[in-house]
Amino acid sequence: MIHTTELTTRSYECDSYGHVNNAIYLNYLEYARIQFLDDLPVPYHELRRRGIGFVVVRICIDYRIQVGSGEHLRIETRSIQKQKVRMVFRQSVYMGDELVAEAEVTWACINDRGKLIRIPPELDIPELEPEP
Amino acid sequence: MIHTTELTTRSYECDSYGHVNNAIYLNYLEYARIQFLDDLPVPYHELRRRGIGFVVVRICIDYRIQVGSGEHLRIETRSIQKQKVRMVFRQSVYMGDELVAEAEVTWACINDRGKLIRIPPELDIPELEPEP
Amino acid sequence: MIHTTELTTRSYECDSYGHVNNAIYLNYLEYARIQFLDDLPVPYHELRRRGIGFVVVRICIDYRIQVGSGEHLRIETRSIQKQKVRMVFRQSVYMGDELVAEAEVTWACINDRGKLIRIPPELDIPELEPEP
Amino acid sequence: MIHTTELTTRSYECDSYGHVNNAIYLNYLEYARIQFLDDLPVPYHELRRRGIGFVVVRICIDYRIQVGSGEHLRIETRSIQKQKVRMVFRQSVYMGDELVAEAEVTWACINDRGKLIRIPPELDIPELEPEP
Repeated sequence: MIHTTELTTRSYECDSYGHVNNAIYLNYLEYARIQFLDDLPVPYHELRRRGIGFVVVRICIDYRIQVGSGEHLRIETRSIQKQKVRMVFRQSVYMGDELVAEAEVTWACINDRGKLIRIPPELDIPELEPEP
Repeated sequence: MIHTTELTTRSYECDSYGHVNNAIYLNYLEYARIQFLDDLPVPYHELRRRGIGFVVVRICIDYRIQVGSGEHLRIETRSIQKQKVRMVFRQSVYMGDELVAEAEVTWACINDRGKLIRIPPELDIPELEPEP
Repeated sequence: MIHTTELTTRSYECDSYGHVNNAIYLNYLEYARIQFLDDLPVPYHELRRRGIGFVVVRICIDYRIQVGSGEHLRIETRSIQKQKVRMVFRQSVYMGDELVAEAEVTWACINDRGKLIRIPPELDIPELEPEP
Repeated sequence: MIHTTELTTRSYECDSYGHVNNAIYLNYLEYARIQFLDDLPVPYHELRRRGIGFVVVRICIDYRIQVGSGEHLRIETRSIQKQKVRMVFRQSVYMGDELVAEAEVTWACINDRGKLIRIPPELDIPELEPEP
């Protein structure tokens, strides 16, 4: 399953070159992953209330083109790996047909004291199964 | 050559878990690379004035431990590859003896219209030569 | 004239209390003002291309209630003063019927070297006239 | 008592004009206030551990001059009002002898459920008494 999130870049996200700063993309990707989880049968904010969260343990991101303020972006997110504690997502950012950035993000499941825990069984759902 | 930068994490850089947000580390790494360049014979702000800049084209970062507000961090930066247009840095973030995060960052050289250009000859200096 | 902008708060905009950080509201307000200008006959990005910009010289903001992630906000922006170089906006942020924050923001007009200049005559339009 | 904090502006804090973005100053001011509290006999992080915090309820800030990246700033913070629940600070940001920005910030004391509470008696100390 591919989840799609849309957003528009904002002036204050641009750096002194006039382009969206590279660190801001990590915010966009986090936003898209949480939108993805919030659209699942057990939404993310429900998990957070129960003390379950996710923390980024690894990101690889390639930046292809520079984007200015006021541009409309589309982020596609899909699960490509799911283990006991970790999930890996591939996330692609598009502006129209153009690929802006591509990333692989590894999330680990934690409890409210920050300890690694098993991903809860409620997330054993087809939407999060890696594509074959 | 290994360049060292130090900084202290700040309250507003922490997210709702109370830890420095993963995107903030990209800011820290950029800060450390620019400090590195500014300590060279031809400092970065001098290059910028001549229309030469660097843009991140790829980052891979591993997060090892969570860090709260007010912690003292040390960032070590070294060149590990230098081509015509691109440079790759390895950057390690430490809190005391503990490794907090580790990254490889690829920078491409651009002119003031955002076009890729050759790294200027003033940067053919021992400090930026990859370690053997 | 009252201009209305809508946005949804995002996880990475929240601080360690789990609420949107106070500095983020200044970003929201800037976003709303630029949306306002971009909806005018001479949009903001067109002015920027001609070297005309606006810089904040004063902000007073009252925060009424705390807001978490994923909340839908509405920002109302109106001109309340317009002089040769400066404009003052009143901006109100609502979540449903509740007032979240209220601000007065003074913008000064600058050229591309950062010098104060007269607001260009193209902005002598009813939409920016202060309410009587 | 005037508390002084120093910091250096960073590249990623600058916007597309090449100057420190106006919202970033609110971060700087927060940083300076927390440094102030952390230098008191009962430091801020100790209060936070006991569930006591402070939330900004009002800020008025005047921006005097634009500041670029890599500039050394000095922030002076003093209490100018102290009530049961609220404290007002005056904060001045300098670059060398030049005044960069000046602000009045009202903080309200809250418990860990976000309810307003009396400022704890441990903060009845000379350092926080308003100047006559």
